[in-house]
Amino acid sequence: MQYNGALAGVKVLDLTRVLAGPFATMMLADMGAEVIKIEVPGSGDDSRQFGPFINGESSYYMNLNRNKKGVTLNLKGRGKEIFLEMVKKADIVVENYRPGTMEKLGLGYEELKKVNPKIVYGAVSGFGHYGPYKDRAGYDIIGQAMSGLMSTTGWPGGEPTRTGTAMSDILAGLSVAIGLLAALRHRDVTGYGQKVDVSLVDATVASMEIINQIYLVEGRLPQRIGNRYESTYPYDSFKANDGSLVIGAANDKLWQKLCVIMGQPELGEKAEFDTNWKRVQRHEEVKVLVEAWTITKPVKEIVDALLAVGIPAAPINNIEQVVNDPHIAGAREMFVEVDHPKAGKMKITGSHIKLSDTKPCIKTPAPLLGQHNEEVYKDFLGLSADEIAAMKKDGLL
Amino acid sequence: MQYNGALAGVKVLDLTRVLAGPFATMMLADMGAEVIKIEVPGSGDDSRQFGPFINGESSYYMNLNRNKKGVTLNLKGRGKEIFLEMVKKADIVVENYRPGTMEKLGLGYEELKKVNPKIVYGAVSGFGHYGPYKDRAGYDIIGQAMSGLMSTTGWPGGEPTRTGTAMSDILAGLSVAIGLLAALRHRDVTGYGQKVDVSLVDATVASMEIINQIYLVEGRLPQRIGNRYESTYPYDSFKANDGSLVIGAANDKLWQKLCVIMGQPELGEKAEFDTNWKRVQRHEEVKVLVEAWTITKPVKEIVDALLAVGIPAAPINNIEQVVNDPHIAGAREMFVEVDHPKAGKMKITGSHIKLSDTKPCIKTPAPLLGQHNEEVYKDFLGLSADEIAAMKKDGLL
Repeated sequence: MQYNGALAGVKVLDLTRVLAGPFATMMLADMGAEVIKIEVPGSGDDSRQFGPFINGESSYYMNLNRNKKGVTLNLKGRGKEIFLEMVKKADIVVENYRPGTMEKLGLGYEELKKVNPKIVYGAVSGFGHYGPYKDRAGYDIIGQAMSGLMSTTGWPGGEPTRTGTAMSDILAGLSVAIGLLAALRHRDVTGYGQKVDVSLVDATVASMEIINQIYLVEGRLPQRIGNRYESTYPYDSFKANDGSLVIGAANDKLWQKLCVIMGQPELGEKAEFDTNWKRVQRHEEVKVLVEAWTITKPVKEIVDALLAVGIPAAPINNIEQVVNDPHIAGAREMFVEVDHPKAGKMKITGSHIKLSDTKPCIKTPAPLLGQHNEEVYKDFLGLSADEIAAMKKDGLL
Repeated sequence: MQYNGALAGVKVLDLTRVLAGPFATMMLADMGAEVIKIEVPGSGDDSRQFGPFINGESSYYMNLNRNKKGVTLNLKGRGKEIFLEMVKKADIVVENYRPGTMEKLGLGYEELKKVNPKIVYGAVSGFGHYGPYKDRAGYDIIGQAMSGLMSTTGWPGGEPTRTGTAMSDILAGLSVAIGLLAALRHRDVTGYGQKVDVSLVDATVASMEIINQIYLVEGRLPQRIGNRYESTYPYDSFKANDGSLVIGAANDKLWQKLCVIMGQPELGEKAEFDTNWKRVQRHEEVKVLVEAWTITKPVKEIVDALLAVGIPAAPINNIEQVVNDPHIAGAREMFVEVDHPKAGKMKITGSHIKLSDTKPCIKTPAPLLGQHNEEVYKDFLGLSADEIAAMKKDGLL
């Protein structure tokens, strides 16, 4: 199937499993690339076994693999030759195996380059393809722990805390997509492909912005400081009478406005709190003062009042609120319905990269295991029906 | 200055400030794009005022703006015409103003398109350029709160928790870079640019992977569950006698191996814990059993022992450990030295997107305010020395 999209015509062979790699190729597919997901015959992507399930189909898998075509192929033996034939016709190959796995199969980047010097090769792994820890397995929690992210998430006196989503996987998926598209442009200009090596740990370290600089410049070890921020106050969470909200009154003018709304304009002039730096130093006192006001009212009333006068504020939404929000779910279409042949109509997460002329969209549900074997091996690779039947018989598909 | 890189020859006009936008253009610059950062005369990017400082220079700014050229320009009056002349010669424009700001200046995408239909326009904002909340300010904490990320980060019975880095900004920065590069390819193929609209809230919602699906499919509200994971156990943090570590023994075989290392091979056979699902259900008991072992030993000894038999494990590094790690800081070059004319030699965070042939690198330190005015207005725009002097005199630069 061909459809318009910013990446229409870009052919991607996708060997990735579970999350980081599939998230990257999902974005490419949402933007119109032809992504052919190649799965192990019989079982397929491990995440096909991850719940929650609808009619036995994994919604974990269905969310991350929409818009892709699915084929099966045993990469050993004759399957290896078939894969190399596909590489000749592709623009991009992506995998997230443990480093060395593709080389053991005889399908490392150096081999693929021999059959197609234009190929762009993306690899996502826990620690990257070189360096002393390259052979270590890299789950998301390993990335969050090694990078320092957990050490700075959480509460004073409390434990290091994992971010509630597989953030290292997501960061690595986004980052390899950037590398692939940059390498693709370089390929379009020069005629030469290259390898993009992104690790969960590196991608998470890169996300640490000022946190790394605090240590590098001041030698001060960044601590867990709950929901506040190092450099401005009030910029924190506050309890309301029916939940919590955040307020980002990041400068003196916003602080004065906040005091007026709180019915204490004199507080805004008080010398103890009249500069941002003083408020940062006295953040515990400021929190008590603001929370004494917020705790008496519902979240919605407070947020509406603050937004009305231009003070940045937001409810701390739970997932039910996010999924039903008129802006997020409505106007921004962040949850979209797809009709899956087995699971039926279901909602998955929409594309967050809004392109004005080639709007990313979800055209097809995730493939059943091997659903596009005939189509891809015939149309993409030019094999005859007999040859495909023989491959099936030989257990290659 | 021209140097090789995957994006050599790509010209970016960068109007972004603080974090999300500058992080995106930093990645483009690291990969060889010519990024011209346009700052407000006199004060420049707000983040020039953010610590920590070295000889009065902001390391926050210096980290995110390396490899960019810096000019000043007042976008009002004649400055607007000058900017439009630059747009004619550019490939990409990026901004992270509040939606509507560029339109008020007469420099919205629709205007830029008129002078250069090939221009690719990237906008990063809190809530995006359409939808009922588009006019709300969007700091990072607002993105983390609105998206549901905070509601699922933290501990049972505890408060919603902000991730310890400005993660919504980072996710939006990565995402707009992907959109820009996809739109650039579409432009290269079709001759037409377009607008890329990425919001902090959307980008964070997109990062929620299985969390959204749990609610959408099961109607179950995902909770804060500390460091463990919904679908596998043991996959959690554990206390050692000198810190904490994470273990990801995500299947039965790894669980059995772990029990052997713990000196309790019989535990691996015990019927109460012999499937992953049973261990997830009894995660509190399993944690007690594993922690009774880890608490007696130092982190390094445990991690080394687990890795030696192939059980995924890692220390929960603090930033000092990250910055001095032989893999992260050594082989992967995630902290690199740069020589800044005022701050001197300093370390900043390296590029995490490792391209094999066009290695991203840090060639030049972040610009001083207006440092490249002469060079850019002469070489890029073709203005004479007299014209540039007149612009200075008129307060345009």
